[in-house]
Amino acid sequence: MADLSTTLPLTRNSVVAAHKVVKPHIHKTPVLTNRTLTELASTPRDLQGTKWEGREPAKPVLRLWFKCENLQRIGAFKARGAFHAIERLKLEPGWLEGGGKEKGVVTHSSGNHAQALALAAKESGIKAHIVMPEISNPLKIAATRGYGANVIFSGSTSVEREAVADRVIAETGARLVPPYDHPDIMLGQGTLGLELQQQVRDLIADEAQHSFRAPKTISSRSGREDKGLDAIITPCGGGGMLSGVALSCEGTGIKVFGAEPSFQGADDGKRGYESGTRVTAVSSLTIADGLRTPVGVHPWKVIYERRLVSGFYSVTDDEIKAAMKLVFERFKLVVEPSACVGLAVALFDEDFRSMVEREGGEAGWDLGIVFSGGNVGLGAVGKLFEA
Amino acid sequence: MADLSTTLPLTRNSVVAAHKVVKPHIHKTPVLTNRTLTELASTPRDLQGTKWEGREPAKPVLRLWFKCENLQRIGAFKARGAFHAIERLKLEPGWLEGGGKEKGVVTHSSGNHAQALALAAKESGIKAHIVMPEISNPLKIAATRGYGANVIFSGSTSVEREAVADRVIAETGARLVPPYDHPDIMLGQGTLGLELQQQVRDLIADEAQHSFRAPKTISSRSGREDKGLDAIITPCGGGGMLSGVALSCEGTGIKVFGAEPSFQGADDGKRGYESGTRVTAVSSLTIADGLRTPVGVHPWKVIYERRLVSGFYSVTDDEIKAAMKLVFERFKLVVEPSACVGLAVALFDEDFRSMVEREGGEAGWDLGIVFSGGNVGLGAVGKLFEA
Repeated sequence: MADLSTTLPLTRNSVVAAHKVVKPHIHKTPVLTNRTLTELASTPRDLQGTKWEGREPAKPVLRLWFKCENLQRIGAFKARGAFHAIERLKLEPGWLEGGGKEKGVVTHSSGNHAQALALAAKESGIKAHIVMPEISNPLKIAATRGYGANVIFSGSTSVEREAVADRVIAETGARLVPPYDHPDIMLGQGTLGLELQQQVRDLIADEAQHSFRAPKTISSRSGREDKGLDAIITPCGGGGMLSGVALSCEGTGIKVFGAEPSFQGADDGKRGYESGTRVTAVSSLTIADGLRTPVGVHPWKVIYERRLVSGFYSVTDDEIKAAMKLVFERFKLVVEPSACVGLAVALFDEDFRSMVEREGGEAGWDLGIVFSGGNVGLGAVGKLFEA
Repeated sequence: MADLSTTLPLTRNSVVAAHKVVKPHIHKTPVLTNRTLTELASTPRDLQGTKWEGREPAKPVLRLWFKCENLQRIGAFKARGAFHAIERLKLEPGWLEGGGKEKGVVTHSSGNHAQALALAAKESGIKAHIVMPEISNPLKIAATRGYGANVIFSGSTSVEREAVADRVIAETGARLVPPYDHPDIMLGQGTLGLELQQQVRDLIADEAQHSFRAPKTISSRSGREDKGLDAIITPCGGGGMLSGVALSCEGTGIKVFGAEPSFQGADDGKRGYESGTRVTAVSSLTIADGLRTPVGVHPWKVIYERRLVSGFYSVTDDEIKAAMKLVFERFKLVVEPSACVGLAVALFDEDFRSMVEREGGEAGWDLGIVFSGGNVGLGAVGKLFEA
């Protein structure tokens, strides 16, 4: 990881600079729309049997735009931050000259960041050491090795994993590249926000060229042709993507929201944001396995202290599964559970939906939703939905 | 269905005319690329344990471009033919004046054509009667009713289904809209071929704008920037899409191939093409359930008699499943088994691969592959892959 003293300031311009750096290495993932999901989001829910039973159902007008990072390299947005971190590291004075490529980089992760770092390091001819718990999914171990990384096993607690990473650093001189808690990572992930903003503007400006058709009841958007998104909602685990996207929207008038699973306290971002104190530990087995981590120190500064995020919403694991099923069967896209929290909020969270009704009024909102990744095997999908 | 005497001639220009007609009603589905699949297709196979064991593995150079009709309205290309048939019917002298909308349209189908016709009819305010076997998937019945159609049950043999359709026609005066064996349907399906040709030309011309990056070994395409596809391969059931796409390529120099399942004789197109006699009956329970029908009379004329299709290839159900798993796990797209036969041919059929090596040489081929549909439920996917 580039030393903190050499990182770019956390501004929209730095996200633009990061985009220039990572663009040759990543996919410009498509922004897609889906009439069924947009209609569903714009239809008042039947609240019977929900915790909102008895409340008047919200009547938000929502047009949904999906940024498909499940189609990103390695199947998740994490490629953006990893490539940015590697490129910044190469620019750090003395790192290359000091044999940095041979010393390599290290991280402890069993998820998408492991594969992203392995790929980004490989393409620059840099050694990558990835510390993974012994109990990791064999497919993920194989995939990480497939990108040429040196996989080192550890116990599964964070203390055990960090101890092994420290030992690798001591032995090799490798540089640690954390999964989210670093400005280089945040700026890299934020590049998806820039693309999403421009892609939606282009799509709205050129309706004839794209496949979105608003349902008849919400098709009147007079005077709105010159504008793009009203808001973006992204999943929030460690907060790297949420904070990066928030930076990408600074000064644009686009509101940014975080979405989390509520299961076993995985809604640490929401709890921290609402109480004013960052939650520093999470122990949840939510099916959204990419979102089991607490928000990091650096993301927190952007998300909360600078108030670049307007609020958090959380959904149950059942709501995440329902959203995932809709995406699979109606949208024909494979998304992992973590990727579905934003859509689940838009479809099922009456607090969010009332807020959109209130703030968006009759014209409604163009809402960007980030499908953060699609790394889920057919076997795991079968198990999730067999009940 | 428009009377045969009023249909357009089967030419590329008629496909262009059909495209103008259906464009406002359908999605211009994206053309996507996938580095993993392109690399896999361009890597010689290990033939041990296959029926080609002992042969020198083919070394084709393939760049794959996927036309994502799984993202089409109703989840399959069938929307194109159905909208075209309905629009042509509305133009037929006397049909509207004779109360055509009230008399309606009828078809017998348990698959994608049923939903496509129901949707197209609904959007023109035309009654749709859909004859479905009693044993049809309840989800498909519900989806067809969801588009406002009158679902009428029948026995499951084609004789029983046709008898019920005939009764509906006698009682209501509804017009039959068959799923593939009619010029209006063929011309409608062929519109995807036009889009695919133009989209690939645009993408090749503007590499910076899209996410395709050819593997290093096959990246040299000097002098090819002005051209697009070399060939297209589409699934073939009744042949409506294959013949339409072949018409869309007439005179362009782009070769067109049909792909079929081989299980229990579902490769009727291949057998007919190679023997010179159309096979008129198929009884196969291949997992590619959209491809269990014999090639129709009208498609046959284009495919075989005019030789607008250059050949057929067939794959096993296991190969179809392997392709489907790759698309799901590496491409993150939901495709139904029938949609995977073209990719399975490109990846697994040594006859096809040798032919590409021979004809494409070092420069290789840009191959368009049609993902024809994505209508498969999570439950069905779980069952397919639980073994």
